[in-house]
Amino acid sequence: MGQTLTEKILDDHLVEGELETGEEIGIEIDQVLTQDTTGTMVWLQFEAMGLDEVQTEIAAQYCDHQTYQFDFKNTDDHRFLRSAAGTYGAHFSRPGNGICHNVHRENFAAPGKTLLGSDSHTPTPGGLGELAIGAGGIDVTVAMGGAPYYIEMPEIVEVRLEGELPEWATAKDVILELLRRLSVKGGVGKILEYTGPGVETLTAPERMTITNMGTELGATTSIFPTDEQTEDYLERVGRGDEYVEIQPDDDAEYDDEIVVDLADLEPLIAQPSMPDNVVPVSEVAGEDVQQVIVGSCTNGGYEDILPVAKMLEGRETSMETETIVAPGSKQASEMLAREGWVAEMMAAGVNFSEATCGACIGIGHVPASDSVSLRTFNRNFEGRSGIEDDNVYLCSPEVAAAAAIKGEIVDPRDLAEELGDLEDPGVELPDEYDGSKTDLISPDEAVDDELIKGPNIGDVPLKDQLGDDVAGEALLKMEDNITTDHIIPATQDILMYRSNVPKLSEFTLSRVDDTFAERALEADGGFLVAGENYGQGSSREHAALCPMYLGIEGVLAQSFARIHRANLFNFGIVPLTIDEDTYENIDQGDEIEIVDDVYDAVTSGQEEFTVRVNGDEYTATLDASERERDILAAGGKLAWTKDQAEESGAATADD
Amino acid sequence: MGQTLTEKILDDHLVEGELETGEEIGIEIDQVLTQDTTGTMVWLQFEAMGLDEVQTEIAAQYCDHQTYQFDFKNTDDHRFLRSAAGTYGAHFSRPGNGICHNVHRENFAAPGKTLLGSDSHTPTPGGLGELAIGAGGIDVTVAMGGAPYYIEMPEIVEVRLEGELPEWATAKDVILELLRRLSVKGGVGKILEYTGPGVETLTAPERMTITNMGTELGATTSIFPTDEQTEDYLERVGRGDEYVEIQPDDDAEYDDEIVVDLADLEPLIAQPSMPDNVVPVSEVAGEDVQQVIVGSCTNGGYEDILPVAKMLEGRETSMETETIVAPGSKQASEMLAREGWVAEMMAAGVNFSEATCGACIGIGHVPASDSVSLRTFNRNFEGRSGIEDDNVYLCSPEVAAAAAIKGEIVDPRDLAEELGDLEDPGVELPDEYDGSKTDLISPDEAVDDELIKGPNIGDVPLKDQLGDDVAGEALLKMEDNITTDHIIPATQDILMYRSNVPKLSEFTLSRVDDTFAERALEADGGFLVAGENYGQGSSREHAALCPMYLGIEGVLAQSFARIHRANLFNFGIVPLTIDEDTYENIDQGDEIEIVDDVYDAVTSGQEEFTVRVNGDEYTATLDASERERDILAAGGKLAWTKDQAEESGAATADD
Repeated sequence: MGQTLTEKILDDHLVEGELETGEEIGIEIDQVLTQDTTGTMVWLQFEAMGLDEVQTEIAAQYCDHQTYQFDFKNTDDHRFLRSAAGTYGAHFSRPGNGICHNVHRENFAAPGKTLLGSDSHTPTPGGLGELAIGAGGIDVTVAMGGAPYYIEMPEIVEVRLEGELPEWATAKDVILELLRRLSVKGGVGKILEYTGPGVETLTAPERMTITNMGTELGATTSIFPTDEQTEDYLERVGRGDEYVEIQPDDDAEYDDEIVVDLADLEPLIAQPSMPDNVVPVSEVAGEDVQQVIVGSCTNGGYEDILPVAKMLEGRETSMETETIVAPGSKQASEMLAREGWVAEMMAAGVNFSEATCGACIGIGHVPASDSVSLRTFNRNFEGRSGIEDDNVYLCSPEVAAAAAIKGEIVDPRDLAEELGDLEDPGVELPDEYDGSKTDLISPDEAVDDELIKGPNIGDVPLKDQLGDDVAGEALLKMEDNITTDHIIPATQDILMYRSNVPKLSEFTLSRVDDTFAERALEADGGFLVAGENYGQGSSREHAALCPMYLGIEGVLAQSFARIHRANLFNFGIVPLTIDEDTYENIDQGDEIEIVDDVYDAVTSGQEEFTVRVNGDEYTATLDASERERDILAAGGKLAWTKDQAEESGAATADD
Repeated sequence: MGQTLTEKILDDHLVEGELETGEEIGIEIDQVLTQDTTGTMVWLQFEAMGLDEVQTEIAAQYCDHQTYQFDFKNTDDHRFLRSAAGTYGAHFSRPGNGICHNVHRENFAAPGKTLLGSDSHTPTPGGLGELAIGAGGIDVTVAMGGAPYYIEMPEIVEVRLEGELPEWATAKDVILELLRRLSVKGGVGKILEYTGPGVETLTAPERMTITNMGTELGATTSIFPTDEQTEDYLERVGRGDEYVEIQPDDDAEYDDEIVVDLADLEPLIAQPSMPDNVVPVSEVAGEDVQQVIVGSCTNGGYEDILPVAKMLEGRETSMETETIVAPGSKQASEMLAREGWVAEMMAAGVNFSEATCGACIGIGHVPASDSVSLRTFNRNFEGRSGIEDDNVYLCSPEVAAAAAIKGEIVDPRDLAEELGDLEDPGVELPDEYDGSKTDLISPDEAVDDELIKGPNIGDVPLKDQLGDDVAGEALLKMEDNITTDHIIPATQDILMYRSNVPKLSEFTLSRVDDTFAERALEADGGFLVAGENYGQGSSREHAALCPMYLGIEGVLAQSFARIHRANLFNFGIVPLTIDEDTYENIDQGDEIEIVDDVYDAVTSGQEEFTVRVNGDEYTATLDASERERDILAAGGKLAWTKDQAEESGAATADD
């Protein structure tokens, strides 16, 4: 049986397991990327592991989210990240140099490689045939430490592209069409592999718009085969020698197939407030637009902004609409500036921003209340723009530029007819991506050889190996459906402490009981007790890390949400499942003791544990793979990885 | 006796009083400018006056401070300001179009005119022979309403410039030298008038760097005579027809004289944390610099950034230093972009920002902790950068560029010697300031004809005329030296409510007693009681406006700070001076009554008032000019102005 492209790359990187859907596999990671809002914790964990050098072929640290540096804590984070990259051997991209995905694709992304990144849009270089997956910070940390990345083998879905895009339809409309068809849950547990004759009609940057926003389908990743377009792009970015041809076998078998005829597409738009709420632009034409923003990792490349500049040349943006262009990379800005396009856009009324993620995550250019914002971004979740009840539409740069000119949503085909002299600018790649690399500091040029930590940057505690005796008070008894937002709130006043676990931990479960953190620290050990579905919501690892910091040793719950359960293992907290009767019989303040010798029981594969509560005994269950048991016993994933590295003789700080 | 240049302009605009030092004069205002952090209150007050059209020749509303729009409240403020400008007949400069002073000088500033602006650096166009003064918001409001601006006639000081600047010395060094000599208090109560043969050696933009930063001397304003340089600049900005020659008479008499020989100057720098802490750059050379920022209303012009671009061309900024260039106007950005300089700066490692005040007021690019930031700005007050214990140095663009290259403070003359191929870029004006005007919306083009208020934008209450009976509880008794920071705190979480008096008022005097605001609202009337020097500190009018909103009718204090006392009149609160004995005999909660018929007493010029406290009678004093009494009786300056406008038959909303 032939292999899919995905299977070929996975096969090439397989360290553990077999390529069967649903089976856990471990794969070797060639490249990692981190950004500034997740990177600080990655490096603090790397430090806590005691390793002294990055083990992957390439590690790159970008500063792209908090580039406006509103608070000294942001600037301190950037300084720390530069020092961490220098100390441990990663590339460092300075604030203002651009969005991680854009700078990575310009400088490092390569066909056939694996990339793990602590950002959900890491799949971007799938458009170049790289297998690129977004993950939690600690997964990136351990990959940098040289350990495999473990994942359940996803289904591989073929997305067969037929035909060719008609005028004014773009790569953005391809992914919007898929979102319209499949919904934001349509890609969960799947890798989307693009095939078919339509592939060769798309340039590499267009493919990367599609793979980037594949994240909004919930897909594990998206990937294109490589071909002349791939090679052409790599040559233009000065890395033609990194081209490798990778194609699925002719007889490859897929778990599912979707067919998209590019010729059928037209300008589409995602209405508020979900990326899959997609309709033809013409259906919402006439809606007044108060703000237009062009940029982001989806549509912030040179090739995305050039059409906007061409459409705006010699025209003026509507006086009723604020138009902001925030390039995805400084290289794009520099090239557009050198060719005169930046001046043209400014003359047309564009507010030309430094290169940043910025507004896409609600940092800067927050829309006015009761207004419409039209953006070339990938997400329009309610409130993400920085204001509740926002009205954010997602579309292509061409549709955005049309709205900026007209002051309202308009199908660019209609605007072209109305204006008479407006043409589809098409897709044009520069002969050479020749922007300077001044802001990308390679490990060889590093200016720091030790970590520089501002007062907000704390240490990451490394937990001790699991002991045999686990006992303590039921410090908090909670109900069903406690979310990670309950455990670690994500409001701005708390978010800025993400580099500071001791400080951040003060807010742990404060939305449930604001005395909890203080009581837990005083108790120095103890349990959390919860009902069904404990830890649902986001993947944030702080929801396990902070309880660990406060001394929590176990959680007894009727059931756990999948990702949070993994995080509890990763941070060395014992997650035991209890039945409803047991739950009812535990009161907050009760003394709880796990009767078994816990270390031995966990490592030996024991599933049923005896829990003594106020003298009565109950049964609790530990459902875990061997790897998860090892991680738990070691005191968490950091300690486990450190142990593994020592066993395998890799360089450590003690060497 | 001949006249100074200042006297000529004042004479030409004099409405009331005589030009004798210390006498109150009323002058006609030709132009007003407002920015986004003070403008919202200006327009809310304009609305509250019930007027329907700006009466000055030119009114211009700029959006420059909060251009990053971190919060929807900022964006709502900008939308409100556009609507106010459109509704009432002002020019509107969109966010991103640049700093008020830069855009104003490019578009409106003219010799011989008077300008009043709600920003302390309003004196900038003094470099073009305009008499330009910064003032509180309500003074700008009433000037827009057609009323004169009243001021104590300042001393006129001659600053005689001899010689010519040597290589690497700049206009910035002229004003730094004056700050070194005179200190930040050296200009209080004075207007600095530049004369002498050195004047003609300075271009108009250089002169405006000097007049802009004259604010740091505490001067009322600074002004240059007009000459070929002035005419040349006006021609280049396309307004040569607005040139008027204005020179002091040969026999003009000045109150004082200062002589500066330009030839003696060298690159200077203001050390942390005061603009007058000035030394030669060479004295602090070698200090590592983590951040360099070029921009601001002092040094953000095309002529300021061009030398930086020339110095950086073909070089790289230090990897240890973050270099940010934030132009003062989009016109400067556009011209620099069109000529290729923006690309050169980006290639050298510059993070090129949208045009904004931004970092100068601590909004964005806050320095890292324990770091050095070197800026071309005008102020380095401790903490102004957004972090306490900051280390901000002020210098010329040339010194900033040298530090960006070297990564440490260096005298550019030494760097030139070290590098061999670095030359003083000198001052170069463009043939034509030909940037687009797309972002400047004239009253004729206005897109709004009614006010658009987001949920954070409240109304300004218009107080009723003063009554005869003034009585109520002593709601708060305070000690000596209560500051405006006590009355209305200026921390960020409170500042964002500056357009929302009801919300802002909740924080009134909260640092003294956090129950005060609620108690005052409930009492609906009453008094504040204080010791000496009540209301010292900033000029913020909210410190009177918010107590007025809460219903406070009078303040009994042993003495008042000058500006706050004026603000109490402006907002219709009776400020009565009491002696120590009276102060001691009043307790918080006492019932207080002014025994006299208050309206009649105030308007008739009565100075001594009888105050009954718990049955005992005391004497309190009202020391006020006739104009102040009229304002107080009318219910404040807004009501007074409205009355005046109605009497004179000017257009009102009722017409």
